[in-house]
Amino acid sequence: MKLLEDRIRQDGQVLGADVLKVDSFLNHQVDPDLMTALGEEFYRRFQGVPITKILTVESSGIAPALATGMAFHKPVVFARKHKSLTLKDHLYTAEVYSFTKKTANTIAIAEKFLTAADHVLVIDDFLANGQAVEGLLDIIQQAGATLEGVGVVIEKRFQKGRKLLDDRHIHTEALASIAAFENGQVVFSPDEKEQA
Amino acid sequence: MKLLEDRIRQDGQVLGADVLKVDSFLNHQVDPDLMTALGEEFYRRFQGVPITKILTVESSGIAPALATGMAFHKPVVFARKHKSLTLKDHLYTAEVYSFTKKTANTIAIAEKFLTAADHVLVIDDFLANGQAVEGLLDIIQQAGATLEGVGVVIEKRFQKGRKLLDDRHIHTEALASIAAFENGQVVFSPDEKEQA
Repeated sequence: MKLLEDRIRQDGQVLGADVLKVDSFLNHQVDPDLMTALGEEFYRRFQGVPITKILTVESSGIAPALATGMAFHKPVVFARKHKSLTLKDHLYTAEVYSFTKKTANTIAIAEKFLTAADHVLVIDDFLANGQAVEGLLDIIQQAGATLEGVGVVIEKRFQKGRKLLDDRHIHTEALASIAAFENGQVVFSPDEKEQA
Repeated sequence: MKLLEDRIRQDGQVLGADVLKVDSFLNHQVDPDLMTALGEEFYRRFQGVPITKILTVESSGIAPALATGMAFHKPVVFARKHKSLTLKDHLYTAEVYSFTKKTANTIAIAEKFLTAADHVLVIDDFLANGQAVEGLLDIIQQAGATLEGVGVVIEKRFQKGRKLLDDRHIHTEALASIAAFENGQVVFSPDEKEQA
């Protein structure tokens, strides 16, 4: 998505070998007009898929997931970390390991918000090693719900997350796909889904 | 706001003496169309105020704050908890005590996202004892920014948060104002701001 790639080139910061910092428009400060555009683009790419629910993880996933929910007019559920839910909520849980923080977190969703009748679109800000998305897929399976696809704002295609999803034949859409970082610059994969 | 009061009556759950659970549409599962309506209502109530930035706290504040940012077409900054920012980010920080969880959290905002030139609208999901909002006001003061107002989706008017803000002559808007809980039912304060 050219709008997003341009924004990453303009405002993203490459740190070290494989970190892209986009905290000025995506995950600390958020550009709402950009979020609206991202949500509409996810809608375009998953149009015709019978989505009943958008699923994400707090906190950075909430903004793009909400914008996508606005485009689909479907509820958004965000999995919670840090025991902010209680056991009496009847939870689905999964363990998520963070390579960035080198810690494991439990993520949880109240059972009542995900059922076997649901067709789920998973949305997240980043796809790197795929740990957060795998946690959500685990929860979707526990609920007996149907996974319809995964949409990520930015993927680092050289890390293992995308391959994990492709190997499982999951319909995955990344609005910006980073092939590599070279000399502190972002190299994008060709975008075959760009609108003419 | 009648739309919101109706939704609270329909889907909210009163637990114990003073807890209202709205996790089916506000802070675990989120209704995007309702968020759009809330954002537009905050815009209506603060129209003409020269807002440059919307400020909130992760995670539950993000959805209503983003919807409000969409209505204003202004950036949203969410303060982070749990050390997900690093010290080299040059942070403003504040301590926030949670009466619900009986723990203190540090919230933080990178200095570059809040400056003396900013006119800030604080948005949050709940106003109860006002601890989270006070943490944000502390940060706004550190930045030398101008506080233009506080908008909360739901206030529990019988707790001390609203009085704290009124005593400081802060323009505060609550889209639903709970006067009391009686026999497991929500009693709303009269809504003087409802559109005819």
